[in-house]
Amino acid sequence: MKKIAIGFDIGGTNLRGALVGEDGLIIRRHSILSEADKGIDFVVKNLAKLIKKTSVGGKIAGVGIGIPGIIDSQKGILTQAPNICNVDDYPLREVLMDKIGEEIPVFIENDANCAAIGEWWIGAGRDVKSLIILTLGTGVGGGMILDGKLWSGADGMAGEIGHITIYPDGAKCNCGNSGCLESYASAGAIRRMVKQGLETKLETIIRDKVRNISKERIPEIIREAAIEGDEFALWIWDEVGKALGIAIANLVNLLNVEMVVIGGGLSNAWELFAQRAKKEAKKRGLRAPIKRVKIMKTVLGDDAGILGAGYLVF
Amino acid sequence: MKKIAIGFDIGGTNLRGALVGEDGLIIRRHSILSEADKGIDFVVKNLAKLIKKTSVGGKIAGVGIGIPGIIDSQKGILTQAPNICNVDDYPLREVLMDKIGEEIPVFIENDANCAAIGEWWIGAGRDVKSLIILTLGTGVGGGMILDGKLWSGADGMAGEIGHITIYPDGAKCNCGNSGCLESYASAGAIRRMVKQGLETKLETIIRDKVRNISKERIPEIIREAAIEGDEFALWIWDEVGKALGIAIANLVNLLNVEMVVIGGGLSNAWELFAQRAKKEAKKRGLRAPIKRVKIMKTVLGDDAGILGAGYLVF
Repeated sequence: MKKIAIGFDIGGTNLRGALVGEDGLIIRRHSILSEADKGIDFVVKNLAKLIKKTSVGGKIAGVGIGIPGIIDSQKGILTQAPNICNVDDYPLREVLMDKIGEEIPVFIENDANCAAIGEWWIGAGRDVKSLIILTLGTGVGGGMILDGKLWSGADGMAGEIGHITIYPDGAKCNCGNSGCLESYASAGAIRRMVKQGLETKLETIIRDKVRNISKERIPEIIREAAIEGDEFALWIWDEVGKALGIAIANLVNLLNVEMVVIGGGLSNAWELFAQRAKKEAKKRGLRAPIKRVKIMKTVLGDDAGILGAGYLVF
Repeated sequence: MKKIAIGFDIGGTNLRGALVGEDGLIIRRHSILSEADKGIDFVVKNLAKLIKKTSVGGKIAGVGIGIPGIIDSQKGILTQAPNICNVDDYPLREVLMDKIGEEIPVFIENDANCAAIGEWWIGAGRDVKSLIILTLGTGVGGGMILDGKLWSGADGMAGEIGHITIYPDGAKCNCGNSGCLESYASAGAIRRMVKQGLETKLETIIRDKVRNISKERIPEIIREAAIEGDEFALWIWDEVGKALGIAIANLVNLLNVEMVVIGGGLSNAWELFAQRAKKEAKKRGLRAPIKRVKIMKTVLGDDAGILGAGYLVF
């Protein structure tokens, strides 16, 4: 009988979980609110609830959890997770194992690292031994597999690709630095570019489209406007592609990986920035490693993280 | 009895070799001309000669060779080495083993990778499990140890830290890209800055000092001028430090290593750019990983490569 794990993806809004087979198939999935705004205890309570709900009627080999934050995966400690709640060295594995009964082992890992593992295990990178994933969402996350193993750094903090400097005197980033990749190739960056553009007299159909919509929908609007041929929207995706291409060239020159995978919400607009990203990467990459690297869109999409979390168990 | 290897560092001008003990001590050393301009066959002949000379009177466990180029270390093939001679997939290990007798195993590796191994084994990084070395010489090389193992990439081409883009619209690099680290933090970069500065009416003592000297000595002259307080010379080292600091922040944000080691000829001027490099790295690095990383000058200096080459055997 095949082994089954539960894989979780913890977000600020939702907890998404799924039963994952050791063949990489998702058997059943659930999603509930994370209630992260009420504190870590609520998140843990909801996690335990979802584990019970998801595991009904089957023997579970373990639970794997992906979290946006700094993780000490060896010790099972959530070091920091500003996008979830304000914790400092929270012993998540211990607390959770207490709650659900110790016979089920629990593994935790950074969410972008889980996405890297997922794509390598059963997604875009199933035939390679080294890859880097960049998740372009609200911010930019990253994870890397080198020689068939996750490299998460000396302290589990590796993969902060969003905070590679692209333009030393560029736009201010949330991290305090200027010109980070995240300031040019994330949903936040797109909102900044839209805001700055609309403050000028620029003619664009975006002006009408973004009135009275929630800020979360802006990248989608810009995608539609670009497809309709709006010059300003096309320029925005060009900026995204250019910054991404510089980052990819840096990664490839430095690490000589076989594959770079682009995931996260912005990858929905892949066709609008892929060509520019590849052109810029080729221009700046060293001939041999840039020629051989495959640059592609995520195959697993939103499921990469859940599947990678499940894989932690196997 | 302790094992003994021969470690080699092949340069365009000199072949440097040493008997290296498994305790990391250099027992005896030799240096001859590489005659690389006459072709790879001459280099191999000189290597074989030096192996005989160095190994006199002792049993050798093997030979390790560091070469500035792209190496397939598994197969023992020199893929490309533009700074040595014009080769394409040259089977260096096989040819050399034929020449010296097959009973002595031969290992080859990129020279900056050897320097990384050397510093990790017996130098600055002897107590860490992850480090990156940057060698600031004519160009900028690099090598990295992750979790106690060399990461040389999917094809042995990783570590090209000199070709990380620092300023997207910056100075032209030999690789064809613009604004690479190598265009700002190498001997070549210093010569460019001197040349450009002296084309203006700038007042500087350098103007007299660089007259009638060979271009190889320019970084040394700029070091002396900076120590004498020359503003232009100080500005040059500030530029070197700033570019290096941006690169270090990128490396640390991305890889979360425990140590960054600066080697190569320019490290002689470490005191003149270290502070600026650290300040810039701190400004751009994420709080936790940049706080914990140690940024330091090479401990082994020119011997890092020879020692690392020797370690390949053990």
